[in-house]
Amino acid sequence: MKINNLNELNTPCLILDKNLLENNCHKARVKCSELNTILRPHVKTPKSIEVAKIALGKDIGPITVSTLEEAEYFASSGFKDITYAVCIIPAKLKRLNYIQLKYDSVIRIVIDSVIVAKQIVDYTKLHSANFEILIEIDCGEGRSGLGYQDDKIREISKVFVTNHNTKLLGVLAHAGHSYSTKNKKEITSISNIEREQALASLKYFVNSKNNSPIISIGSTPTMFYAEHLKGITEVRAGIYMFWDLAQASRGICKIEDIALTVLASVIGHNQQKGKILIDAGALALSKDISANKFMPKAGYGLVCDPNTSIPFKGLNISEVHQEHGSIKIDDTNWFDKLPIGSLVRLLPNHACLTCAAYSNYNILENGSIVDNWSRTNGW
Amino acid sequence: MKINNLNELNTPCLILDKNLLENNCHKARVKCSELNTILRPHVKTPKSIEVAKIALGKDIGPITVSTLEEAEYFASSGFKDITYAVCIIPAKLKRLNYIQLKYDSVIRIVIDSVIVAKQIVDYTKLHSANFEILIEIDCGEGRSGLGYQDDKIREISKVFVTNHNTKLLGVLAHAGHSYSTKNKKEITSISNIEREQALASLKYFVNSKNNSPIISIGSTPTMFYAEHLKGITEVRAGIYMFWDLAQASRGICKIEDIALTVLASVIGHNQQKGKILIDAGALALSKDISANKFMPKAGYGLVCDPNTSIPFKGLNISEVHQEHGSIKIDDTNWFDKLPIGSLVRLLPNHACLTCAAYSNYNILENGSIVDNWSRTNGW
Repeated sequence: MKINNLNELNTPCLILDKNLLENNCHKARVKCSELNTILRPHVKTPKSIEVAKIALGKDIGPITVSTLEEAEYFASSGFKDITYAVCIIPAKLKRLNYIQLKYDSVIRIVIDSVIVAKQIVDYTKLHSANFEILIEIDCGEGRSGLGYQDDKIREISKVFVTNHNTKLLGVLAHAGHSYSTKNKKEITSISNIEREQALASLKYFVNSKNNSPIISIGSTPTMFYAEHLKGITEVRAGIYMFWDLAQASRGICKIEDIALTVLASVIGHNQQKGKILIDAGALALSKDISANKFMPKAGYGLVCDPNTSIPFKGLNISEVHQEHGSIKIDDTNWFDKLPIGSLVRLLPNHACLTCAAYSNYNILENGSIVDNWSRTNGW
Repeated sequence: MKINNLNELNTPCLILDKNLLENNCHKARVKCSELNTILRPHVKTPKSIEVAKIALGKDIGPITVSTLEEAEYFASSGFKDITYAVCIIPAKLKRLNYIQLKYDSVIRIVIDSVIVAKQIVDYTKLHSANFEILIEIDCGEGRSGLGYQDDKIREISKVFVTNHNTKLLGVLAHAGHSYSTKNKKEITSISNIEREQALASLKYFVNSKNNSPIISIGSTPTMFYAEHLKGITEVRAGIYMFWDLAQASRGICKIEDIALTVLASVIGHNQQKGKILIDAGALALSKDISANKFMPKAGYGLVCDPNTSIPFKGLNISEVHQEHGSIKIDDTNWFDKLPIGSLVRLLPNHACLTCAAYSNYNILENGSIVDNWSRTNGW
């Protein structure tokens, strides 16, 4: 089917297929419902109010953010229940509290340090501030968080026992290492460990003032390949909304599930070098090549038919400069098939990074671009 | 010297050292003056009015842009003489002409195709539009442009002979492959070829209506290592304003010349893994690692003292996630030297890509953050 108004857009730009987005979001909600847990979508991927609402299946609900800018953007649009899933530092408490008070929202915070725990308590004594807190548990990724048996969990929980402005609600874990494999059994095993260690870490809590602790886990692969999530109160995941080649390369989604593409124009034919040049380069796509580990021909992105977004066989973006992308071709017939000025759609390696170069999404629905949704960026 | 108000900034953010910027810009102007040619700064690096003025050493002057968004941003601030140095396609002529007419400016365009040349002429017949045009010459990079002896140069120049709304002014070449070496003799050799081929290509012009053709060349390395630029009317270069590790790794600048850094906060200590976590990850730095070819320990950026921006010996950003950067440490004393909450400055691999994540620069001058300059992004 031909999209009737693609050529009215300035390239490069983002195209978001609303039907695919809705399907992807529906599947995640169904999955979490089957697992009897709450989905708290991670909006660091879309950074868009409209997308968050589709992810939730309703206007307002619990979300996860990765920056205070996102927290403010969503809180200012009425989102009240936000988890900021990157460890907080004292210097950020002022802005965080400002957002909470201004928009009557709760931005739940995450820590993995005894010192920061004490500094948070000190802050609440000096300022009119209330904070909800989770302790980050490292369930194997080796990035941030405490090991589930680390005695610092006990130490941190002690800090909050006698303070009335803080509530230590539970723990948060993120099995980001689930992206490192395409073996489904291995993902399930990582999911089991994520669940078990998050739950086990709670026994080190000293009087958490809370009989229903939050046990928040999540990553898109460990959600979809979880054996069960008994005891887990919520799941954070984000990339499932759009999908991308990194996920497709690991078999977590199919290429035809990917809802997010970049629309670009052919701007040149280098006959001597056998290259088609497009106006989407390192800024329009990002330099992420994480799909290539399991999909060595992904390059900086796959080149697709502009109407169907089905990949053209054998065409990828082999090279990027700031504003140029190069498509190396073996067959010179491609020069005729893709004349200068023609449009292509590009499947990116990593949607979270690609989207960050743009301020909005062009919404594709039933063969037309029907809307334009804004997103936030920065910090 | 301690910067007295760094801790008032939200991290991550950009810090631009005004004194270094001014020195860098001054050196490039002196160089072009010695070479008896005009500097047309490429503002794709800073995308900022204030930086462009410092690059020019005056309020208004000739500039180069890489997107129509930049063209509009600069034209709307009074810049009248702009070269859009990426090959144009017909679909972009409408917006380009709108910018020219609205702001009474000239956005000179670049082509390397006979068909596009004819389409430009057709456009001017249907619309009230005048265009100034350069033919792009590929002097060895192998990206866009025609070989300097390509017969299409003659064909393109013929297209414009009888059309009164278009002026074919000359040629444009970009020796982007000068970034691929750190051998100064090789850079000089590339500079010689860039100059010679740009000049030689002109002999294929058929009656260009212009007795003083524009011969525009440029890249930062070939400007600084040019033997001479006789006959070259202008030089386009941009990264010299800020510098970055990619350039320092090739010996084109010194690390202490780099004017652009990212300010970040330490947000965690992973004692078990020997990692310091910071709040600058893949979005705050980009995933560009182009310095590593000649500086294998550059990682995703070097970690520096926040006040002096002198690199801490042995510390780089070894891993990035969307909002986390990891600094692998060998010596656990770094946990004491860089406690959670402390600031670091980061030298990026590629300033053009790093800056694109931000909407503004924090301006450092004489030990204080004294101003905030906006920049544009997107397309």
